[in-house]
Amino acid sequence: MKVFSFDPGRTHILSLPTGADLLRSVREFAESESVHAASVTFIGSIRRADIAWYDQDAGEYENVILDAQMEVFSGMGSISLYEDRPFVHLHAGFSDREGNTRAGHINFGTEVFAMEVTVNELIGDPLVFWGQIDAGETTDEAGSS
Amino acid sequence: MKVFSFDPGRTHILSLPTGADLLRSVREFAESESVHAASVTFIGSIRRADIAWYDQDAGEYENVILDAQMEVFSGMGSISLYEDRPFVHLHAGFSDREGNTRAGHINFGTEVFAMEVTVNELIGDPLVFWGQIDAGETTDEAGSS
Amino acid sequence: MKVFSFDPGRTHILSLPTGADLLRSVREFAESESVHAASVTFIGSIRRADIAWYDQDAGEYENVILDAQMEVFSGMGSISLYEDRPFVHLHAGFSDREGNTRAGHINFGTEVFAMEVTVNELIGDPLVFWGQIDAGETTDEAGSS
Repeated sequence: MKVFSFDPGRTHILSLPTGADLLRSVREFAESESVHAASVTFIGSIRRADIAWYDQDAGEYENVILDAQMEVFSGMGSISLYEDRPFVHLHAGFSDREGNTRAGHINFGTEVFAMEVTVNELIGDPLVFWGQIDAGETTDEAGSS
Repeated sequence: MKVFSFDPGRTHILSLPTGADLLRSVREFAESESVHAASVTFIGSIRRADIAWYDQDAGEYENVILDAQMEVFSGMGSISLYEDRPFVHLHAGFSDREGNTRAGHINFGTEVFAMEVTVNELIGDPLVFWGQIDAGETTDEAGSS
Repeated sequence: MKVFSFDPGRTHILSLPTGADLLRSVREFAESESVHAASVTFIGSIRRADIAWYDQDAGEYENVILDAQMEVFSGMGSISLYEDRPFVHLHAGFSDREGNTRAGHINFGTEVFAMEVTVNELIGDPLVFWGQIDAGETTDEAGSS
């Protein structure tokens, strides 16, 4: 087990506008504020989700597009540093008109209707990302393909 | 993107009694402690859920009642100020005996079996609510209809 | 309503190795660092889930095993003290290749593929656990049966 320890920093609540790309918006905030370590939660609603499931045997993500208006009933993740740039890792769950759910790892291409994102900054050494990154995830073009 | 920034304040863990109304209980706590900005998480179990999905075209919530004993496997949201009164915005996911799930925006009328609610107070200017509010949500009568 | 209030303490991000038992790993961390009050969130992926639903009438948990590779799209809970030992209470939601979900209370026997666990320490009196505990939950043998 690796352990990274921090002191609590500022908390930011972001209100994202209709049409925003969820993942890109959080990354832009992290870049503009030089956030190098944070935990993140979010709730709201979306117009479209681009989510992924990690194939542990193949070592790659499989993507699913949900072209639907859904509540985001749960959203959480982290901001770390990867190759000297903020890296945002988010997972979320979505619910429809009947309360039925879908969920997964958030790709670029998830489009906001309304969203409140809570970013809890962590004070200490940068949180250098230690996990598995899809080749395209660090570029703006990733995830919507 | 609007950004509201805060310093971390006290954290309160609330244990709600069997039969409590989830949303009303958190609002009563916020009123009694004058909490004007907070992030919230919660897990536990319920006897009945009154949840909603937002129809983005019609601009209104549609409600679903779940008359069932379910785990609350995920719960999160915020406390802000709306018309000088604490406004509690919660979303949650529920699971049944087989682990199947339902989820949505929490209305009044969601009845607790057991619940631990974590309220992270945020220090700074009040978080003035900026989102979409169902007409009935700020009254005690709302959401259970 | 019982209320336990704290000041914010350190935040630890744990990266759990492949094959780790989720619940046991968090408890081992809490014991090694003497964490007696904390809120916890986590996301990642698992190879196997051992989850439960609480039967409110019978007063006991029913268990479900998911022998599948799934994303953990939501994970949250708390660390409290029970009989002078850290007690870890976690609930989580899982998603598969199509984004379909299952969820519940986490038992021992939930096996990690990759997991980032955020432990927010709370400063104050220990959080003495006040809830319902399955007989086996405080032992290493519990939950995988």
